[in-house]
Amino acid sequence: MPNSFASDNVSIACPEVINAVVEANSGIQSSYGDDDYSRNLRERLCDIFETDLEVFPTVSGTATNALALSVLTPSYGKVYCHALSHINTDECGAPEFFSGGAKLVAMEGSNGRISAEVLSQTIYGRGNVHHAQPATVSLTQACESGTIYQLDEIQAISEVAREQGLHVHMDGARFANALASLDTSPASMTWQSGVDVLSLGGTKNGCLAAEAVVFFNTKLVADFPYLHKRSGQLLSKMRFVSAQLEAYLADDLWLRNARQANLMAARMSEGFSAIPGAELAYPTEANEVFVKLSAPILNGLTEQGYELNDEELDGSAIRFVAAWNTQASEVDALLAAARNAST
Amino acid sequence: MPNSFASDNVSIACPEVINAVVEANSGIQSSYGDDDYSRNLRERLCDIFETDLEVFPTVSGTATNALALSVLTPSYGKVYCHALSHINTDECGAPEFFSGGAKLVAMEGSNGRISAEVLSQTIYGRGNVHHAQPATVSLTQACESGTIYQLDEIQAISEVAREQGLHVHMDGARFANALASLDTSPASMTWQSGVDVLSLGGTKNGCLAAEAVVFFNTKLVADFPYLHKRSGQLLSKMRFVSAQLEAYLADDLWLRNARQANLMAARMSEGFSAIPGAELAYPTEANEVFVKLSAPILNGLTEQGYELNDEELDGSAIRFVAAWNTQASEVDALLAAARNAST
Amino acid sequence: MPNSFASDNVSIACPEVINAVVEANSGIQSSYGDDDYSRNLRERLCDIFETDLEVFPTVSGTATNALALSVLTPSYGKVYCHALSHINTDECGAPEFFSGGAKLVAMEGSNGRISAEVLSQTIYGRGNVHHAQPATVSLTQACESGTIYQLDEIQAISEVAREQGLHVHMDGARFANALASLDTSPASMTWQSGVDVLSLGGTKNGCLAAEAVVFFNTKLVADFPYLHKRSGQLLSKMRFVSAQLEAYLADDLWLRNARQANLMAARMSEGFSAIPGAELAYPTEANEVFVKLSAPILNGLTEQGYELNDEELDGSAIRFVAAWNTQASEVDALLAAARNAST
Amino acid sequence: MPNSFASDNVSIACPEVINAVVEANSGIQSSYGDDDYSRNLRERLCDIFETDLEVFPTVSGTATNALALSVLTPSYGKVYCHALSHINTDECGAPEFFSGGAKLVAMEGSNGRISAEVLSQTIYGRGNVHHAQPATVSLTQACESGTIYQLDEIQAISEVAREQGLHVHMDGARFANALASLDTSPASMTWQSGVDVLSLGGTKNGCLAAEAVVFFNTKLVADFPYLHKRSGQLLSKMRFVSAQLEAYLADDLWLRNARQANLMAARMSEGFSAIPGAELAYPTEANEVFVKLSAPILNGLTEQGYELNDEELDGSAIRFVAAWNTQASEVDALLAAARNAST
Repeated sequence: MPNSFASDNVSIACPEVINAVVEANSGIQSSYGDDDYSRNLRERLCDIFETDLEVFPTVSGTATNALALSVLTPSYGKVYCHALSHINTDECGAPEFFSGGAKLVAMEGSNGRISAEVLSQTIYGRGNVHHAQPATVSLTQACESGTIYQLDEIQAISEVAREQGLHVHMDGARFANALASLDTSPASMTWQSGVDVLSLGGTKNGCLAAEAVVFFNTKLVADFPYLHKRSGQLLSKMRFVSAQLEAYLADDLWLRNARQANLMAARMSEGFSAIPGAELAYPTEANEVFVKLSAPILNGLTEQGYELNDEELDGSAIRFVAAWNTQASEVDALLAAARNAST
Repeated sequence: MPNSFASDNVSIACPEVINAVVEANSGIQSSYGDDDYSRNLRERLCDIFETDLEVFPTVSGTATNALALSVLTPSYGKVYCHALSHINTDECGAPEFFSGGAKLVAMEGSNGRISAEVLSQTIYGRGNVHHAQPATVSLTQACESGTIYQLDEIQAISEVAREQGLHVHMDGARFANALASLDTSPASMTWQSGVDVLSLGGTKNGCLAAEAVVFFNTKLVADFPYLHKRSGQLLSKMRFVSAQLEAYLADDLWLRNARQANLMAARMSEGFSAIPGAELAYPTEANEVFVKLSAPILNGLTEQGYELNDEELDGSAIRFVAAWNTQASEVDALLAAARNAST
Repeated sequence: MPNSFASDNVSIACPEVINAVVEANSGIQSSYGDDDYSRNLRERLCDIFETDLEVFPTVSGTATNALALSVLTPSYGKVYCHALSHINTDECGAPEFFSGGAKLVAMEGSNGRISAEVLSQTIYGRGNVHHAQPATVSLTQACESGTIYQLDEIQAISEVAREQGLHVHMDGARFANALASLDTSPASMTWQSGVDVLSLGGTKNGCLAAEAVVFFNTKLVADFPYLHKRSGQLLSKMRFVSAQLEAYLADDLWLRNARQANLMAARMSEGFSAIPGAELAYPTEANEVFVKLSAPILNGLTEQGYELNDEELDGSAIRFVAAWNTQASEVDALLAAARNAST
Repeated sequence: MPNSFASDNVSIACPEVINAVVEANSGIQSSYGDDDYSRNLRERLCDIFETDLEVFPTVSGTATNALALSVLTPSYGKVYCHALSHINTDECGAPEFFSGGAKLVAMEGSNGRISAEVLSQTIYGRGNVHHAQPATVSLTQACESGTIYQLDEIQAISEVAREQGLHVHMDGARFANALASLDTSPASMTWQSGVDVLSLGGTKNGCLAAEAVVFFNTKLVADFPYLHKRSGQLLSKMRFVSAQLEAYLADDLWLRNARQANLMAARMSEGFSAIPGAELAYPTEANEVFVKLSAPILNGLTEQGYELNDEELDGSAIRFVAAWNTQASEVDALLAAARNAST
C-alpha cells in the first residue's frame, strides 16, 4: 500500500461526488454528452466563471491537456512551458501525439513557474518556414512544484502572448487548490487574466475521473468536437462524468476540498521546517510539499511504512501531497515519524 | 429524451456495478493501475478465459479499439475490416489517429460480417514498399448489424490471417451478447479461435464506463503500456474502472445482462416480423434489431414519442437496441405502437 | 534491365530539361525557393493556366499528392478517391501519414474513374462527430488505368463537391498526357472545371525529379509553406527543381513529350487489339496500355527479354507504358514479339 | 541576390556532379532505387566506410534527419540533442512529424556541442510509463556553430548511449567538412566511435540535391524502406540521386571540396580576428564562421551589398559560410570591406 501522501490520486472520491454518480444512474439519457447533466454542467460553469464558455468533459488529465494543446497548436507549432511542467515530463509525449508533432519548448523559471520575461526572450522565428512556429504558452496553476502564479504574473505572461500571437492555456489539474490559495474568483484567474483555454481538473480533488476542457475564447473551439471524439474522451455515458463535475462545483465543494488539502499541506510544510535535516525545496502554496530529507529521516520514514518516491520532479526532494480528505492526525503522525528519525 | 431503444448507451449501469464503485471508494490505492482491483481483474480474466493474458483497462470503446489496432499495425499498415464496422464508420478516424496513419481496408460481406474468402482475395502487396502493408484483420463480435460470427467463421478468418502474417483483433464492444448468443466459452470465441487481442466492452452492457484491451498473445503487448498512458486511457484512479469490470465479470453478471438484452431483441424481432410494413434488414442474433419501416409506421412511432434515428449503418433501416435492463413491457409497447400505426 | 515499357520512370530525362539544369548551375541564388527560377516558374504557370495561382515545387509524386491532400483534409477527414488510385494503392500510406490520419474512401467506378453519382451517394455524416468528416475528392488525370476524364465529368464531380463542401484535388502525375489527349487548355481541365489544387507531374514525362503543388484556390494555401518545409520537399537548392519545370513547360515541351507518348501507346493498343490472345483491359486514352495476355504471349515476351510485371492494378493485366522518348520501332518490336508468340 | 557567404546552399553544384547527372541520363534503369547507380553507391560506401552497411539515398537534409530519427525513436520517445542543433531549430518540426510525436530534449553545451556528462545527467525515466522514453542521441558533425567533435568526445557520448540503451545518430549535413577538419577516416568518425546511423550530406558540399541515410548498425534498418517510400524520399528516378553521390564520393571529391571550404573559412576567421569590432562567437573548425560585428561594420557590409542575416543560431552573431567553390579573392574582398567599415 502506498503512503497516503504519495499522490492526490491515491485517495478516494468524496461522498458528494459518489452520490451524484449514484443519482445519475436513473432513467434514459442521450449518449455522448447530449444529456441533461452535461447541459447543466455548462450552465453552472458559465455562472461560476461569469462568462459564456464552452465545456467538453473528459476523464484523464493527460488527455485533457493534450486535447486542449492540440486545438491551439498546429502540428508544426511550439508550446512554451516550464521544463518541470506535467505536459513536458509526465504525459509520455501525449501533447506531441495529440497535436501531430508539436514541439514543447522547455523553459527554466524559479519555483516551477515561467516568467513573462523569459517567455518573451524565448520566442522567435514567426513566419520563417524553417522554424517550428510559436503557437501556445501553457501555465500550470497550481504548479507541479506546489507554487502559485499571482494574477499579475498570469497577466504579464498573457500580455506577451497577445503581443506575439500565442494562445494561452492553463493546466488546472489543481485549479481549485490554486483558487483557494489565491482567494480570488475563477474569472479573475482565467479569462480576465488572458487565459483562452483551461484544463479543469476534478479527479485529484475529490472526483472519480472527471476533468474538462473549458474554452473562454469560444472561437478557438473550431473542430474540437471531432478531436474530442477521435481521442476517446467523449464518453458514451457522459452523464456520469458531467454529474461528477456538477456535484464537484456545487455549493463550493471544490473549494472546500481544496482548502482542506491546502491547509494540511501548510501544516506539513510548517512541521517539516522545524525539523533538522528537512529542508523545503519550494515554498508551499497549494497542496504539495517538496522536502529534501536527510538520510536518517528517509530511512526512518521508510521503516515506519511510508513508501517514498523520489522520482517526482528533479529527484532531489520528496513530494508529500495532501488530498481533500487528509486529516491533521495523519499529518502529525508523519511529522512525528520524521522528527523521531531526525534525532 | 431519446427513446430507450436508441442505443445501449442511453441506459444506466446495473446495480452490481454501481455498488462496486461505491465499495471501491475506500482506503488508499496506488494510482495508474497499480492497485488491488486491477490486479484482481487480471486474475479473474485469466480464469474466465482459461489462459495467461494481459489486460489494460480503458474507459472508451473508441479508444480501446484504436489502442489495440495501433499496437498491432504499423503507421504504414493496413487493417482489414467490414465496411460497416464501428472502427471504419463511427470512431471519427481514431484508428488512423492512434496508429499514425494506418489504412482501414473496408470489405463487403453479408450481414455485416467479413468472410475468410473475401479477406484472402483482398490481401496483396506484402513486402512491396509501394503498398501500405497488410497487418491486421479486425472482426466485430457481435457485429454492428446485430449478427454473430460462428466459431468456424472466426477460425477460418484467423487461418487466413496466420497464413498471411496478419494479427487478429476482435472488437468486443458487445462481446457478452455474442457469447450469450453462441452459448460458448470466452476462450473458444477468442484465443482458441485465433484471436490475438480483444477489445472487451463493458459500458454497453451495464457498466458506467469500463472497457479493456485484452492480450491473449502476450508477446504483442510490446510497448503498449506507453501507448496506453500516452492516449489518456490509463486513468489515475484506475481502481474505479477495474472495480466495475470485476463486478461485471463476477457471478456471470455480464452473461445475465447480455441474455436479457438478447432475449428482448429477439422479442422485438419476432414482433416486427409479424407487422405489415416492417421488414428486418438483418437477422437478429444479439441485442440489436434493424428494421425497414413503412412511412406510416415511422410516422406513428414518432408521434408516440419514439425519436428515430436513421443515421445508423446504411440509413435504410431503423436500429432498435435492447439493453441489459430492457423490459418485455417496453418492447411490447413499442410493437403495439408500430402495429397500430401500420394499419 | 527492365523492359522499357515497364514504367515511365525507367526512362531518361529529355535533353531540354537536362540542359536547363546545367544552365542553372551558375551564380549565386537564394536557397529554399527564393530564387529567380522559382519566381519565373510561378509566372510561367500563371500564364499557362491563365490565372493567378501559387506553386510549390517538389521532387516526389507521392509527397506532392500527400502534401496537397494534407492541406485540404483535416486529420479526421475523408478523401474520396477511386479504389485503384495511386494515392490509395501505391503510396505506402503517405496521404494518411502527411494528413495525420485522414481516411481514404475507396470508390468503385468504370475504367478507373469515379463518377459524380457514386460520389454523391458515398458522402455522408457531415457534422456528426462520430464520423470521419467529408473533406476532399481526388481525381487522377490521366487515371492509373490509362483513361481520361472528360471535362463534363470533372465538372460534374466538382459540382457534387461544391454542394457537399468538399475540396477538389487533381492528381496530375500524367497531367500533360491527359491534356494532350483531350486537346484542351490547362485552365479548362483544372480551375475552370472546379479543381482547387493540382499535383502537377513532370518526372514521368521528361524531368529528372520535378513536380509541383499548384493552388488555383489560393486561399487554401494557408499554412502550406510550413507543411512543405516540414516534409522535406522544400529543397535547399530549389533552383534546380524549378529550372526543370520551367524548361518542361517552355515551348510546349511538356505537350510534345506527352503527344509522342500517347501516340506510341495508341500504336501499341491498336497492335495488341489485332493479336489473338491479347485483350485490352481498359481503353487506351493516354500513355498506358493494359492488356490481358494469353500464356503463350506472356511466355514469349519473357523469353524475348521483356520483364513483365503483373503487380500493377488488379493483377489481371500487364501494363505497358510509353514514355516521351518511346520510338515506333520499339513498339513494333514488342508487337512483333507478341504476335509471334501468339501463334 | 544574396551574398555568397549567406549559406552553402546558395552555391552551384560542382562540375563532376553535374557531369555525373548528365551521364546517368542514358538508357533504361529500374525505378525507385533498383538501379545500377544505387547499387554501385552502396558498394562504394561500404569501401569508404570499411564495413558492410545499408544506404538509402534522399534529397533533403531535413527529411534525411527526420527519417533517420523516426526509425530510431518511437513516437513516445526522446531524442537528446543540442539546443542549437538543426533538428531542433531549423526543420520546422520534421523530426516530430516523421516520428509521430517524439520529443526533442534540447541540451546546452559549449560551442554548440553536447557533452557525455550533460547527456548522462539529462537521461531519466526509462521504463516509467509517465515519461517519454529515452531513445536516441543525435550529434551534429560538423556542428551548426561550425565546431567539431573530437573522436574521443563522440566515443564518450556513444558510451553513455550504450549504457543507457540509446541509439546514436549523427547529422552529417557537413560530414565531409568535419572529416577534412579532423583528418581521420570515415569509419573512425562513425561506427568505430559508436555511431549507428548517419545522415550523410552532399548538397551543401557540391551536389544538386543528394543526401543519404546510412545504417552502420544494419539491424536498425527494420521497416525503414516503408518509411522511406511513405515520406516521398524514395525518388522514382533514383539513379539521378545515386549518380550524384557516386561522383561526390569518387576520387576524394567530397574531401577536396570540403578542404577548400574549410580553408576559406579559416582565412575568413583569421581575417576577422584582426579587425577591431569583429569578434568570433565560436572557434572556426569547419566551413562556418560566426562573428559578432560592430554597428559600423554591419552597416558598411550592407552598404557594400552583403545581405546579412542575423537569424541564424542565437541572433547575436553573423554567419559566413564558405562553400566548395569559395575563392580567396572573395574572402579577401569581404574582409577588406569589413576592415574599411571598422575604422
